[in-house]
Amino acid sequence: MIPTQQQLENYAELIVRVGVNVQEGQKVVVMAPIAAAPLARQIVSRAYSAGASDVFVEYNDEQLTRIRFRQAPEESFSKYPMWRAEAFQGFVAEGAAFIQIYSPDPDLLNGVDPERVAASSKAASTALAPYRNALMNHENAWTLVSWATAEWAAKVFPDEPSEAAVEKLWERIIDATRIGLEDPVEAWRGHNATLLNMVERLNAKRYAELRFTAPGTELSIGLPEGHLWLGGGKKNGRGVLFNPNMPTEEVFTMPHKDRVNGTVRSTKPLNYSGQLIQNFSLTFKDGKVTEFSAEQGYEALSKLLAMDENAVRLGEVALVPDDSPISNSGVTFYNTLFDENASCHLALGQAYPVNLEGGTELSPEELSSRGANRSLVHEDFMIGSAEMDIDGVTQDGSVEPIFRGGNWAF
Amino acid sequence: MIPTQQQLENYAELIVRVGVNVQEGQKVVVMAPIAAAPLARQIVSRAYSAGASDVFVEYNDEQLTRIRFRQAPEESFSKYPMWRAEAFQGFVAEGAAFIQIYSPDPDLLNGVDPERVAASSKAASTALAPYRNALMNHENAWTLVSWATAEWAAKVFPDEPSEAAVEKLWERIIDATRIGLEDPVEAWRGHNATLLNMVERLNAKRYAELRFTAPGTELSIGLPEGHLWLGGGKKNGRGVLFNPNMPTEEVFTMPHKDRVNGTVRSTKPLNYSGQLIQNFSLTFKDGKVTEFSAEQGYEALSKLLAMDENAVRLGEVALVPDDSPISNSGVTFYNTLFDENASCHLALGQAYPVNLEGGTELSPEELSSRGANRSLVHEDFMIGSAEMDIDGVTQDGSVEPIFRGGNWAF
Repeated sequence: MIPTQQQLENYAELIVRVGVNVQEGQKVVVMAPIAAAPLARQIVSRAYSAGASDVFVEYNDEQLTRIRFRQAPEESFSKYPMWRAEAFQGFVAEGAAFIQIYSPDPDLLNGVDPERVAASSKAASTALAPYRNALMNHENAWTLVSWATAEWAAKVFPDEPSEAAVEKLWERIIDATRIGLEDPVEAWRGHNATLLNMVERLNAKRYAELRFTAPGTELSIGLPEGHLWLGGGKKNGRGVLFNPNMPTEEVFTMPHKDRVNGTVRSTKPLNYSGQLIQNFSLTFKDGKVTEFSAEQGYEALSKLLAMDENAVRLGEVALVPDDSPISNSGVTFYNTLFDENASCHLALGQAYPVNLEGGTELSPEELSSRGANRSLVHEDFMIGSAEMDIDGVTQDGSVEPIFRGGNWAF
Repeated sequence: MIPTQQQLENYAELIVRVGVNVQEGQKVVVMAPIAAAPLARQIVSRAYSAGASDVFVEYNDEQLTRIRFRQAPEESFSKYPMWRAEAFQGFVAEGAAFIQIYSPDPDLLNGVDPERVAASSKAASTALAPYRNALMNHENAWTLVSWATAEWAAKVFPDEPSEAAVEKLWERIIDATRIGLEDPVEAWRGHNATLLNMVERLNAKRYAELRFTAPGTELSIGLPEGHLWLGGGKKNGRGVLFNPNMPTEEVFTMPHKDRVNGTVRSTKPLNYSGQLIQNFSLTFKDGKVTEFSAEQGYEALSKLLAMDENAVRLGEVALVPDDSPISNSGVTFYNTLFDENASCHLALGQAYPVNLEGGTELSPEELSSRGANRSLVHEDFMIGSAEMDIDGVTQDGSVEPIFRGGNWAF
């Protein structure tokens, strides 16, 4: 069996200790696909061992999502169960830790009316905004991890029989999360230190602008004054170190919402709410997307960009070298958690206030005036490749290389 | 595979059309163990086809329940997530239909401290009282059905290998629910008519008292004035016919809470919140249990009886002939939904106001003064056998046979 019992236990231990770093007396919320029940159970057991006061598990089932999108009446998609939104706000207020096992089927909503998906995404984003904002502000500890489902594996390794595909996908997950190592918790300490070192070097530079060059890409991204690079472990509102993504290979900061210009071409498919968007291009002027094209998923992309006024602006810019473990596997995962950690990427929509000095103390208006984008959306898309060069423009206007041929130049 | 795809679809159709009888524009709540996902998905699809406005599925996982009872801190068991209780009250108020797939592992909580189970049951009963009362009053349509899990099947057929045990259990479920027939919905119409015929005969009798005689049993149960027998389909607060249990073979009414005297011996094991109680006896005086014994589960039984002041009084008396389909299978199911429909049974705790003329319009005090018991508990236990005789005492004091040798005498 893949993963082995030992790897499964390592994974749960890593999620509990390094992912959300459960504290004595803390509540823990676990969101898991039903296929991931073996991991959910291990997590619950280890969370109690770590001192959790209560663990609440919410199982989900993508097949029910598909049935709903196909059969539910039109008017239901603009509604959201407010009791769930309020329950999550309650968990936030109590300082709960949130663990999400995220393994979407990339072809889940093939043939479903994108209007329905857009209405449903908007209703969820609106109802869950306080919860999502709390997580983006790192008020609470949270972590996103994956589980190899048959549907996901079939998309990643379409030529393999189902069981072999799942095994191959597990090999990649085990590798990327380090749960095959003897002491994954210690391995993550080392990994976090490496990312932190890069973060400190970038923060010392205080770049005014980043310039991206690659086939189909010629993009300038202005960085706000006081922007902060982050990577690896973060501290939450209570000063507890946590890792929001496992795996993670990125360092990232905040673009200035009004100072993005030029064109960028995607290099990996984007799985947006169960709809695949592939080979797309976005052209920006003064921060806003003014033109776009897509070989696949054009309508889903246009719905994403129309979600609200600022879904057409950027909220994140992240650097990942082409020579990194997930990227070196050569696999396209059709899962943002993996693909974004194999590639430089940008996000449309909401910016992280934590990417600004003192950002979590600012009002929405103050954040906006300092260049932070505000939107119901936060959707990563991949732009990195071995052909990407990135330059940094310093405060005094000099230009220096950050990436050459897809990798760190310093 | 057992069930076949056709049987699975029949089951879902039966649950949606006959179980809760989903109405146009109605919300539907489905509670399902994760193993029953194939049935949950069919139910959701058919509920939308029947006009449901929205279907909410809550998956549960008994292994998490066991982990919680073993590892969670002591003080957590007296708490209940109020957001869930309020969500269910909201569903009640909106007129939702409730479908529960109920397949408990009879050995789930072996070795768990009964104090924890009792505290948790009490917290849940208290928090969910408005929801449970609404269901007991038949305000909303609800139905309880089963799914053959490996853990349950292993208890019922301990000598069979796992797969064979599950298949054998499915055979019994398919038989008892009639989903193997060509038109199960029509078969249930006929079955409901048969039960209704018996209900009408018993209601015409207006018995003052029932007397039960069997090995270890010598019990008199007074019936309140205006008691109503019910069986098979019921009408909910909106006049919609539904079937609360599938299978169902019982006709039942309300005992007078103060007029139960004598001793009764259980004839089948009771699975109470994951704890087995077997071969137990209860002695009543003026409605209250004054003595009890149990060969297995004595402590769980004592916790049940101590749940609140009136857990020691009866809330239901139900008649099921020994010559009935589930009983004839000769199988002990360790699952009340099946075992209660193979045997005459009583319930400790809360009475159904629907078992009194005009009962749903009465205040708690009026109900009580008319003989209805009120408790957080409603727990069925089985007392029927081929050796049971039952007599009815009419208003003028004459005694006539109702059951002889476990079967209807009229």
